[in-house]
Amino acid sequence: MQEEYTPIQFQNGVLKLLDQRLLPHKEEFVLCETIEQGHMAIKDMVVRGAPCIGFTAIFSLALWLKSKKDFSQTELLQAANFLRTARPTAVNLNFEIDKVISLVSQVKNNEEDLYLKIVEYGLTQIRESENKNRKMAIAAQKDLVEREGKKKFRILTHCNTGFLACGSLGTALGVVEHLHENNLIKDVWVDETRPYLQGARLTSYELMKLGIEHRIVVEGAASYLMREGLVDAIFTGADRIVKNGDTANKIGTSNLAILANHYNIPFYIVAPTSSFDLNIETGNDIEIELRDEEEVLSYGGIRIAPRESRAFNPSFDITEGKLITGIISEKGIAKGNYLKTLQEIV
Amino acid sequence: MQEEYTPIQFQNGVLKLLDQRLLPHKEEFVLCETIEQGHMAIKDMVVRGAPCIGFTAIFSLALWLKSKKDFSQTELLQAANFLRTARPTAVNLNFEIDKVISLVSQVKNNEEDLYLKIVEYGLTQIRESENKNRKMAIAAQKDLVEREGKKKFRILTHCNTGFLACGSLGTALGVVEHLHENNLIKDVWVDETRPYLQGARLTSYELMKLGIEHRIVVEGAASYLMREGLVDAIFTGADRIVKNGDTANKIGTSNLAILANHYNIPFYIVAPTSSFDLNIETGNDIEIELRDEEEVLSYGGIRIAPRESRAFNPSFDITEGKLITGIISEKGIAKGNYLKTLQEIV
Repeated sequence: MQEEYTPIQFQNGVLKLLDQRLLPHKEEFVLCETIEQGHMAIKDMVVRGAPCIGFTAIFSLALWLKSKKDFSQTELLQAANFLRTARPTAVNLNFEIDKVISLVSQVKNNEEDLYLKIVEYGLTQIRESENKNRKMAIAAQKDLVEREGKKKFRILTHCNTGFLACGSLGTALGVVEHLHENNLIKDVWVDETRPYLQGARLTSYELMKLGIEHRIVVEGAASYLMREGLVDAIFTGADRIVKNGDTANKIGTSNLAILANHYNIPFYIVAPTSSFDLNIETGNDIEIELRDEEEVLSYGGIRIAPRESRAFNPSFDITEGKLITGIISEKGIAKGNYLKTLQEIV
Repeated sequence: MQEEYTPIQFQNGVLKLLDQRLLPHKEEFVLCETIEQGHMAIKDMVVRGAPCIGFTAIFSLALWLKSKKDFSQTELLQAANFLRTARPTAVNLNFEIDKVISLVSQVKNNEEDLYLKIVEYGLTQIRESENKNRKMAIAAQKDLVEREGKKKFRILTHCNTGFLACGSLGTALGVVEHLHENNLIKDVWVDETRPYLQGARLTSYELMKLGIEHRIVVEGAASYLMREGLVDAIFTGADRIVKNGDTANKIGTSNLAILANHYNIPFYIVAPTSSFDLNIETGNDIEIELRDEEEVLSYGGIRIAPRESRAFNPSFDITEGKLITGIISEKGIAKGNYLKTLQEIV
């Protein structure tokens, strides 16, 4: 991947974010030199995807530290809390903010290096994330080849899980990129992923930048593709994975798992262990976000449906663990009895 | 239903067609007084749905007959063939054109009444179609109540099968209308039906005109709805039903049948016996139309995907007979071993 398409860069004291609101048609960067600008970039969806939101939070706090000669712990916590309000439900955002607060308190006797230290932490986290993603991609390829034999694969994926969401490589799309690098890709099917069209707008952009040929399909075409023998495996990411393997992910994911089960096609989840939430027993205990009806009723400001019509717009669904061929993390693949195998991994 | 929303009317020598290209936002009628105008209305998709295309063909030939004092058989066949070219693959179009030719030859000694006779045939066909649809709706309700008990039902439907497609009542949506008239509807879920959005644009319009509350959902939400227990039954139409019950219908239909099977929810096909094609053994022998990629890549002239991206756009899929709870026709419901039960019906 050419460096210019990296969605997050930190150079010469400036945080440079690819403006994902304008993709795929315009490639513009938003430059942030203050915590306020970082906050706004998260809030306004310039940057998206749990990992990228986390990285942006780290660099935003670094920018705040840079602007201060001296500060109290109270001021630091105020700055941190201001940043948290940019996306109140983002788990990764809070995780990285807490981490930065902890790092700052560890080195409080050497404040001059603080800014550089936090920048270095951010860059390390991006590299670490790429390392984890690469491990997952290698494990996925190994499992797929063991299962299906060495051949060129037709892969179907859903939503957006590539470098735009993860900074580099990505989870499910990282598997596609890795297979492509090893000349093991025959076809890539990109679910358009209604209503927000993450597949048609973002995954397609990533694949285009990576030089990987692909075809976009409507969600309704999945059964057709599988019945025609055009899909060898399905890879998706995860929002949250619970104790019994039940997995919350973008709406439409569980449809794919059920169809794959019907057609006896392997269905994999690719997600780092930071997505595991093993204190939750089953998917029934995960609350699903209901989003604005307008996302379904209109497109690009154009109303599709009659004025009088309503919509119902759940944002995620639950895929039953028993339908998942394997859950691929940076620490290995869990399979079978997830109550046992997920615990063993973590 | 108020008469003004009937999509096909023939009054005082004028064929009046609701312009379906402008729905749901504009309600305008196209007036046809010549066969050329009827031809154009079919070709340009002013009118759509197999039954409505057939009715339009009948009235277009009536208009041609009205314009002729005298004509030869050759001229009649030329006019008929001109009309056939408006939509070369429409089975119903050819069926009705052949029927009109046959009627004309039966009464060739009394040419003055010909025009009125063909108009009368067209009006009869519309009434007959409504009668058939009502029979199907009654049978569907009976089967549903026998199966699930008498209660208010949550129904999911796909694509467009109501009065816009069928002139009145409709097939799968006719069931919804009938249940509504009998106060047996709790929720109606309308699949938006990508890429052409027949659900979001047309089915929603029909339900709005009928005063039936409904909510539009993306196809990806189907598993969520079923898992949450929000769907009691699924009804869809059919493009073609073959010997073993395999059914070709709008892309996404077979996804629903597989999901319904997984969640143990009844999945019904509602279609007149004119959709039966029992000379074809299985769904594998049905050719599936691949449509223009642009339908997936753009919306309302706005490009969604990167310029470099491709799409794959199959228009129909095959639902396996074994996944279908019942095939409801005007001659009764077929169930179980379709090789036997479909033959018994016809």
